[in-house]
Amino acid sequence: MGPETVSARGRFIAFEGGEGTGKSTQARLLAEALEARGIAAEITREPGGTPGAEAIRDLLLAPPGEGWTREAEALLFAAARADHVARRIRPALEAGRWVVCDRFVDSSRAYQGGAGGLGDEAIRALHAFGSGGLRPDLAVLLDVDEAQVARRLAERDGETSDAIGGRGETYHRAVAASFRNLAGADPQGFAVIDGTGEPQAVHARVLEALAPLLPAEAS
Amino acid sequence: MGPETVSARGRFIAFEGGEGTGKSTQARLLAEALEARGIAAEITREPGGTPGAEAIRDLLLAPPGEGWTREAEALLFAAARADHVARRIRPALEAGRWVVCDRFVDSSRAYQGGAGGLGDEAIRALHAFGSGGLRPDLAVLLDVDEAQVARRLAERDGETSDAIGGRGETYHRAVAASFRNLAGADPQGFAVIDGTGEPQAVHARVLEALAPLLPAEAS
Repeated sequence: MGPETVSARGRFIAFEGGEGTGKSTQARLLAEALEARGIAAEITREPGGTPGAEAIRDLLLAPPGEGWTREAEALLFAAARADHVARRIRPALEAGRWVVCDRFVDSSRAYQGGAGGLGDEAIRALHAFGSGGLRPDLAVLLDVDEAQVARRLAERDGETSDAIGGRGETYHRAVAASFRNLAGADPQGFAVIDGTGEPQAVHARVLEALAPLLPAEAS
Repeated sequence: MGPETVSARGRFIAFEGGEGTGKSTQARLLAEALEARGIAAEITREPGGTPGAEAIRDLLLAPPGEGWTREAEALLFAAARADHVARRIRPALEAGRWVVCDRFVDSSRAYQGGAGGLGDEAIRALHAFGSGGLRPDLAVLLDVDEAQVARRLAERDGETSDAIGGRGETYHRAVAASFRNLAGADPQGFAVIDGTGEPQAVHARVLEALAPLLPAEAS
């Protein structure tokens, strides 16, 4: 095929971090900024993003039985991700669109692998099997101090009392530590962004981190 | 612990085979025969057997989206099995009850691993992760010739037109071949039973195969 028939692959950006760190807001602001630059962008989330994966999300957040074992939970996340990657993320990237995702595999690594004790190797093996090990072009880890997270979550009024968000403080502290470890071990793959302050201020830091991936702005 | 505090572990029997080979009927007849001998037995099925696993079964047989990728399907089966093993099968066996299961991991090996092309190693790895690699004490493979299966399925009137049972003839022929390969490679773990003829005749063959596992009958 000549170059004229090849459209450039889109970029894949994942926002990562604990509950209340501003991922959804920053994903939305980034998608808007990309569209403003003429870059077609899809905003999506995990678990979910496709009809199949959203149905699995419902089972994860409100288990029909007495709660999933940690292994069953990790398998369900991997199944939802496999559907999301095959049915939505890869087709969008191949069509040249950017994908901005609220959580991706590093959430499974931090929650189920790190805080849940399953280990990183097991989570990566499930991801290799289910989704061909797809990595985002950049994982943006939003780092927010605990006091600010607690304040934001209090304002949400119980919205995070699902089966995972509702776990105790020790678990969520282990998640935060695990995210930092993952980012520390892969400085090329992660941008750790200070998530404190106004959303627009955080957004400016995100755009700065993404600058190497963005096409030059028309002058 | 002295022997007086240890109740003997129950036995775990799985019925395996394609659609229409008589697994459900034989599972029921076996559970009844065990109860008649004073052996407490639980009859269960896969995918399913617990509230969580039955919810996953619904997603498997009637996918909410455009159908699962083969990887997502295998992950969902492994997740359902992990719940079933942790919440029902292991507790029953540890309490001394027998478990008679209509399908278990060898169905995943034959359908997703063999006919689906994912390979046996991948399915076994998922099972090791999700369910500690639990094996039945005996897998009873019901072998029925194609013509008889076709006749039985025709009588069922569309009951197998779900996302998996409704796959084409080539797929189901590959499943049958795969089951035979698995049994051939593990003659200790499998009993291949001629499933043709009246249910009671097949049941007599099943009991014969299970004789080494059954306690001596009171005389």
